[in-house]
Amino acid sequence: MGCAPMGHILYDEVMRYNPKNPYWFNRDRFVLSAGHGCMLQYALLHLAGYDAVKEEDLKQFRQWGSSTPGHPENFETPGVEVTTGPLGQGIANAVGLALAEKHLAARFNKPDSEIVDHYTYCIVGDGCNMEGILTEACSLAGHWGLGKLIVFYDDNHISIDGDTEIAFTEDVSGRFEALGWHTLWVKNGNDGYDEIRKAIQEAKSVTDKPTMIKVTTTIGFGSPNKADWDAKFAQYEQKYPEDAATLKSIITGELPAGWADALPQYTTESPADATRNLSQQCLNALAKVVPGLIGGSADLASSNMTLLKMFGDFQKDTPEERNVRFGVREHGMGAICNGIALHTPGLIPYCATFFVFTDYMRGAMRISALSEAGVIYVMTHDSIGLGEDGPTHQPIEHLVSFRAMPNMLMFRPADGKETAGAYKVAVLNRKRPSILALSRQKLPHLPGTSIEGVAKGGYTISDNSTGNKPDYIIMSTGSEVEIAVKAAEELTKEGKTVRVVSFVCWELFDEQSDEYKESVLPEAVTARISIEAGSTLGWQKYVGSKGKTIGIDKFGASAPAPKIYKEYGITAENVIAAAKSL
Amino acid sequence: MGCAPMGHILYDEVMRYNPKNPYWFNRDRFVLSAGHGCMLQYALLHLAGYDAVKEEDLKQFRQWGSSTPGHPENFETPGVEVTTGPLGQGIANAVGLALAEKHLAARFNKPDSEIVDHYTYCIVGDGCNMEGILTEACSLAGHWGLGKLIVFYDDNHISIDGDTEIAFTEDVSGRFEALGWHTLWVKNGNDGYDEIRKAIQEAKSVTDKPTMIKVTTTIGFGSPNKADWDAKFAQYEQKYPEDAATLKSIITGELPAGWADALPQYTTESPADATRNLSQQCLNALAKVVPGLIGGSADLASSNMTLLKMFGDFQKDTPEERNVRFGVREHGMGAICNGIALHTPGLIPYCATFFVFTDYMRGAMRISALSEAGVIYVMTHDSIGLGEDGPTHQPIEHLVSFRAMPNMLMFRPADGKETAGAYKVAVLNRKRPSILALSRQKLPHLPGTSIEGVAKGGYTISDNSTGNKPDYIIMSTGSEVEIAVKAAEELTKEGKTVRVVSFVCWELFDEQSDEYKESVLPEAVTARISIEAGSTLGWQKYVGSKGKTIGIDKFGASAPAPKIYKEYGITAENVIAAAKSL
Repeated sequence: MGCAPMGHILYDEVMRYNPKNPYWFNRDRFVLSAGHGCMLQYALLHLAGYDAVKEEDLKQFRQWGSSTPGHPENFETPGVEVTTGPLGQGIANAVGLALAEKHLAARFNKPDSEIVDHYTYCIVGDGCNMEGILTEACSLAGHWGLGKLIVFYDDNHISIDGDTEIAFTEDVSGRFEALGWHTLWVKNGNDGYDEIRKAIQEAKSVTDKPTMIKVTTTIGFGSPNKADWDAKFAQYEQKYPEDAATLKSIITGELPAGWADALPQYTTESPADATRNLSQQCLNALAKVVPGLIGGSADLASSNMTLLKMFGDFQKDTPEERNVRFGVREHGMGAICNGIALHTPGLIPYCATFFVFTDYMRGAMRISALSEAGVIYVMTHDSIGLGEDGPTHQPIEHLVSFRAMPNMLMFRPADGKETAGAYKVAVLNRKRPSILALSRQKLPHLPGTSIEGVAKGGYTISDNSTGNKPDYIIMSTGSEVEIAVKAAEELTKEGKTVRVVSFVCWELFDEQSDEYKESVLPEAVTARISIEAGSTLGWQKYVGSKGKTIGIDKFGASAPAPKIYKEYGITAENVIAAAKSL
Repeated sequence: MGCAPMGHILYDEVMRYNPKNPYWFNRDRFVLSAGHGCMLQYALLHLAGYDAVKEEDLKQFRQWGSSTPGHPENFETPGVEVTTGPLGQGIANAVGLALAEKHLAARFNKPDSEIVDHYTYCIVGDGCNMEGILTEACSLAGHWGLGKLIVFYDDNHISIDGDTEIAFTEDVSGRFEALGWHTLWVKNGNDGYDEIRKAIQEAKSVTDKPTMIKVTTTIGFGSPNKADWDAKFAQYEQKYPEDAATLKSIITGELPAGWADALPQYTTESPADATRNLSQQCLNALAKVVPGLIGGSADLASSNMTLLKMFGDFQKDTPEERNVRFGVREHGMGAICNGIALHTPGLIPYCATFFVFTDYMRGAMRISALSEAGVIYVMTHDSIGLGEDGPTHQPIEHLVSFRAMPNMLMFRPADGKETAGAYKVAVLNRKRPSILALSRQKLPHLPGTSIEGVAKGGYTISDNSTGNKPDYIIMSTGSEVEIAVKAAEELTKEGKTVRVVSFVCWELFDEQSDEYKESVLPEAVTARISIEAGSTLGWQKYVGSKGKTIGIDKFGASAPAPKIYKEYGITAENVIAAAKSL
């Protein structure tokens, strides 16, 4: 790719219009996918007057502590809004950004005031085009008719292993057309400045389809925005005060006072229910008070229980609605949600599938964590408890795999209070994504659980000892907390003192004070047992050398859930036996 | 989908020809993707005379211990060859099966003897079609011109969330055409038996492209194979004894005597090198003696160092070659390799990318483990040691995430001897996939490491104590073993006794006898330190409550590797300080 002409057009047509106001809401968004001009991106930010990218930073490219790391990171370099290192993430981010624009415009624009109005541009190369995530995201962009998304395909016939002839000979434009896109081809991109400008105008004239412009050799783009948005907004505010207030809260990310009070209240008298159902109650309660909540499922809405009942579907002609139908496109879904989250602080995207299929979208989830995008991942069918669907659908290693992922909050709530508590933390954490692992099967509402307890990650839910010295500590998460409680009751009957700890979010517990930790897990008590229907790996950290772990270190099986629990030894009897062996 | 007509055609045209000889080599392969006729598949196997699927098994559908689990699993039900539970895996498996056929046919067929000659059929629905992995795999199938792959698209406009109108309105046939496929449409699949038969014949007449047959409502297919292959092979063996012997060893999976002796020998005098380079030496040495070794990289061959120098590229017109160019299609690559591995026991597929991009292909890797496909995953750039590319490219949580995955062997070799040792175990384990995490940076060949040690997973590489009671045990893997050795040398100079343990594969260590484990990690020695450039989670299992872990529990950074090691505290000084604090 020839950087010079592209840089020229970028600077000439875009950045010079608003160099000093990089963060105003209505500006066009630009996504450069991986491998595309890391250094170019920094140079442009420098030229455009972003203070954080000084000339000396350019010289420190890829060096320790510089603002110019090897791949642009949104948390490192002001002006960089999404982290697009791994191939295909950038284009899916761009679809999310364009979705956010279309949605907010439909909700807040008035015939006399187009308060939300910008384009999203993205540059992709051959590498991105080979990734499945690109087709997932672009199929949705076509379906949704994201007319203000303009993608440049840098058709230079080169990927890392060499000429694309070795592995990539498909008709890329044909594929985009099949996905419902408007396509253009600038055959001479090298010095065809006018051709590129013309193509951009032509792309803008087609408003019901996204446009893919194939550019041979070199590309560029422009945007005619002016910095008059503040005045426009003042006028809007005067005429539509209510909408203006809502939009403002979305732009700033400020949550309405008392929003958390809207979360459902549960008691031990509430009917037993699957946490996936309780999750839907929480989501629907939140949607009433959190104006930026938007999301959906990868073709499992009625299993994941993610529909917002008071809203319709976000579709091509109803973009103001909030139920997004992602289809079976997990990876695209996650990266699109990153784009939504990073478009505007108050947009809070959630997305859902079966917990085991995080394997299909882990690339995007890691970027949520790395790029501080507070996406809420609603992951149901969280263990062998899902039963008959069998081992391909039963998570085993997934909890520990996310507990090890930096900046990711991994929740596994035990009942209604803990589900509400997890949502409270998740909504508040706009720079940390959250995963809620939720049960398919019914669970009772337990005594001792609480919304406040969840915020501490691990907390005592029952204890018949005094002096912080129980005979045993039984720790657990999610659907197995019920089993831990049963085992504790039995042991108590036999005259033992037992503490039950719900370890709903390890990351939050690890951040508590040493004093608090000692109050939950006193060093002197080494008779500790963990029980969780997943890999035991990692629990050694809490049970210690003398403790015992009960879990599952092999794949699951297809049968009714209670049968699998019994066969796999995830039972109160086993907890009791383990305790007695200590 | 109407099962009855499909079942009729399946039974009528395929199974009745060879009901009693299900495992003969040259039979056609059938892949039913997820959601497509689990029960149907079992019923057909039963009708076809597979003993393991009896009438009582059909009644035990989705029950504990039955041979008819909720999703068909190749390790549970004889006759089921691939595990296709998660959407999109099945079609990518089918591409792998068709690749294997084309490759073996090109290597072994003679003008007078088409000893390898079968079709691969696959049924996909709308769900599979939305998954990115499908487009990845089908783009390759088109590129490779897999003319004997015939895919039926069950165009019934339904996925789990309801009508496909909500999220899937693209032109599927147009997309396949853009991917280089031959497409057909049977408009009346319900009673169009003749139309379906005609389409199959038409598909077979196009030999240079795979065919996608869109079938509205219902499908079926047939294959005219007869069970005369044994006679054909006897003839072939007589005329081409050498080729026949090679093919036989591939069919049976029997490795040639002494194959492991071909692995390169390294000594402490060998020049320091990156384990990714040593891996390439191993792969090239193995390719000379292991006839079924075949594989490649997802567009990173010259970074992953996976090219087999004595072979050309597997391409449309050179399918007898062994370097497969997967393009940037990690998920498709993994699932295609599952198909290759499950086609024939002696085909040993390997595939490669950066270790961090296992996030893009984890769905397929889990299926390798679950379905007992011995794929070898060559994963380079295995830590912050890759340096400047920064945090999006630096694995942190990946080692522990795979250590928790059942039936997966996770290797992180420290030098040449350990790399060769890892390959030896990987090649031998045809029912367990292996991952080799390999360094970008140069590492010295250490005293004390060995091929034999690797087979035990964790073993002592140096120790100046007597009586199995060193003052300290320092444990490590991969590039940090060098640091552990340096720290031990320092502590030894100060008069301490120190053991260094290389923990190259946790899973193998955990399978050793208690006696062996005690000989490596004596219970009495609690002063233990681990050092690894990745998440510390999980190490508590070996260092115990009193030990210390040194690792990285946040994301990486972009800078030269030695600088990041220092800033992140992955140093001998820190090991020494930790030891002294115990």
